[in-house]
Amino acid sequence: MPRVMSWVESANRPEAEFPLNNLPCGVFSQGEGEPRCGMAIGDVVLDLAALEAEGLIALEGGPFLDVPFWNEVMEAGPAVWADLRAQVTALLAAGSTKRYLVEDHLHPRAGLRLHLPFLVAEYTDFYAGRNHAANVGTMFRGADNALPPNWLHMPIGYNGRASSVVVSGTEIRRPWGQVKGPGFDAPAFQPSRRFDIELELGCVIGQGSEGPVTVAEAEAMIFGYVLLNDWSARDIQAWEYQPLGPFQAKATATTISPWIVMAAALAPFRIPTPPREVPLLPYLAEPGPGNLDIALEVALTPAGGAEAVISRTHAGELYYSFAQQIAHHTTSGCAMTVGDLIGSGTISGAARDSRGSLLELSWGGAEPIALPGGGSRSFLEDDDTVTLRGHAQGDGYRIGFGDCSGRLRPALADPYAR
Amino acid sequence: MPRVMSWVESANRPEAEFPLNNLPCGVFSQGEGEPRCGMAIGDVVLDLAALEAEGLIALEGGPFLDVPFWNEVMEAGPAVWADLRAQVTALLAAGSTKRYLVEDHLHPRAGLRLHLPFLVAEYTDFYAGRNHAANVGTMFRGADNALPPNWLHMPIGYNGRASSVVVSGTEIRRPWGQVKGPGFDAPAFQPSRRFDIELELGCVIGQGSEGPVTVAEAEAMIFGYVLLNDWSARDIQAWEYQPLGPFQAKATATTISPWIVMAAALAPFRIPTPPREVPLLPYLAEPGPGNLDIALEVALTPAGGAEAVISRTHAGELYYSFAQQIAHHTTSGCAMTVGDLIGSGTISGAARDSRGSLLELSWGGAEPIALPGGGSRSFLEDDDTVTLRGHAQGDGYRIGFGDCSGRLRPALADPYAR
Repeated sequence: MPRVMSWVESANRPEAEFPLNNLPCGVFSQGEGEPRCGMAIGDVVLDLAALEAEGLIALEGGPFLDVPFWNEVMEAGPAVWADLRAQVTALLAAGSTKRYLVEDHLHPRAGLRLHLPFLVAEYTDFYAGRNHAANVGTMFRGADNALPPNWLHMPIGYNGRASSVVVSGTEIRRPWGQVKGPGFDAPAFQPSRRFDIELELGCVIGQGSEGPVTVAEAEAMIFGYVLLNDWSARDIQAWEYQPLGPFQAKATATTISPWIVMAAALAPFRIPTPPREVPLLPYLAEPGPGNLDIALEVALTPAGGAEAVISRTHAGELYYSFAQQIAHHTTSGCAMTVGDLIGSGTISGAARDSRGSLLELSWGGAEPIALPGGGSRSFLEDDDTVTLRGHAQGDGYRIGFGDCSGRLRPALADPYAR
Repeated sequence: MPRVMSWVESANRPEAEFPLNNLPCGVFSQGEGEPRCGMAIGDVVLDLAALEAEGLIALEGGPFLDVPFWNEVMEAGPAVWADLRAQVTALLAAGSTKRYLVEDHLHPRAGLRLHLPFLVAEYTDFYAGRNHAANVGTMFRGADNALPPNWLHMPIGYNGRASSVVVSGTEIRRPWGQVKGPGFDAPAFQPSRRFDIELELGCVIGQGSEGPVTVAEAEAMIFGYVLLNDWSARDIQAWEYQPLGPFQAKATATTISPWIVMAAALAPFRIPTPPREVPLLPYLAEPGPGNLDIALEVALTPAGGAEAVISRTHAGELYYSFAQQIAHHTTSGCAMTVGDLIGSGTISGAARDSRGSLLELSWGGAEPIALPGGGSRSFLEDDDTVTLRGHAQGDGYRIGFGDCSGRLRPALADPYAR
């Protein structure tokens, strides 16, 4: 897809995350104003609620945009999603005759507050990164049992906690939890000492389903994508996860990027999933390229220190596409709901510096990573800030998500003090 | 608490599930009418929306009752919950001078449709029944490893799928899924052959929280209780559950009773949890008796056959109370939300005929149970109906939940046919 030029000059810079080809969906507020729907374009945000109120945007079944979530647009369906993109593209395209009507509804992004862009119905986290699964399996079960026996046959996932999902910029509080070290007779209740991040992509379900859906049908249910950091307390996880899976270890917070990049914006960047190592059952067959050509990175900024990129990887590492994950999710008759968030699982490359979690980067703490500004990390220290970034590279333009960032605050002295 | 007599005669029978002491919360509709809030009393249902519209009930912050869910009442808080009970009790008590105003708003239960009584925010299923955990552990890991090492130290739980929760009477469709038998090289995609039930209590969160809460605070967040059948595909579960826990095996359906019995109605029936086998960490200490004195049973009715009670057990078997489960749920900072549903886990007694799942009753299929009308069961057959019942026995009255029932329909011939 060729680059589309806008009269918003900052959108036309080759390195801009939000060119006219992107038009990601967010919720913003200004000062004391109410949060409402907007789209990022260059360095500014377009107030969609205002455009809709003035009749510059009109969507079938609307109004949808003067609310603090995108769920109503999602519910309206793919024809409305496409129509919205077409109308906004026309308004912002270079040469638009309506520029003078739109200009007043652009606000510098730096002065805005960004909110969670949608109401999260339910949150499911998959485990679809092959290197991550093999790394964790090797650490926990040995190299001979790196991948669980089911892993190459289906996308393994678990239900997460929707109430834990927060928008980029939200401070994260180091959790307390029940842990038991290998040398101890009894568990203790204490702040997590192995608090970690997981670099993931998320996808947002824009159309619900009842009963099993095919991979092709699942693909059509996707509204868009976000960056996702699945904060993880490894010491809590190690003690709790048998036999029913991760629970409180994953419930402290899950940070997503403030912008949902619509599936249409990433359509030109589809790539095949990796070659199958064993044949998949027919219900997981892919009708076309299901992965996304998105470069990803993790940056860590110690308190008062300089930012260091600690991992660079790629969304093409996912062994199962989101559409395969969703199709599998529905096999038992599980209904999907507008606003469901699906996490991909940690995305790690084969190289050490392309691993998507500190657990892997430091190999369980055995090999701390050095930070360029001095010091090292096995797991997060208080007041570390972690930022995920990602973009698809087009011909002369990029499709980005905005920073997906969070600072880890120290544990509470007494979690039961009010 | 003494029995309270009502001018609704059917409520005063000693075996009635819905005496004036109960007043459980449901959502009902008549014919083409809109679903709205009601309370069961004897053989009839009181139309609370109508009473509120006529000013016979007035709640601070209301109206709340002309909607198809109880979430708004829950959100209003414990003072409103108590006030509602007091107002309805006064209207229905023997000798009420307002009887003539109320009578027109009572409808025979048999002619009504009952709906899911609340919007399920998120659904968490615990594993708090000691006999169930030990039975399953023995079958899967051997008698020496019956209980996981963490089990006696904390309530183990996993996040379930809220979209799977349905009201009693909803037909259940036998799911397809990926399974792999021990004698097979590769998995297959087929209808579940080991479809099971789980007898549980559920509790409904009526007040949300942020950050960790104590057991006492957790207790105060509980709006009420339901019966809960966590339908489970054991063959799908066996293949998928390592390492991240049950997923599609539990996502077909979770049936709850149509009536939420408010915590206040069960306050006289509180009993202590069983003696601790190892000391619990202080954050799980109980301020008072946390379990409920509720007798439970599972009935199975084959297609065209007679109902047989296949298990009788008791809610006092739960090793961890709901308040302990909720407190643990919040340790990591996990926010609880109005409308969250918490399942207790399967409630099994020590005796064989008090086990709460067919997996246990038939010992994994090795010892099928005989049905009194002929035939036997290891797992469910098509068109079996399973009904859970439970009640607390007071002095001359009972507190019941109504049947929690579902019929298993045959698997679809082709789950991808539309």
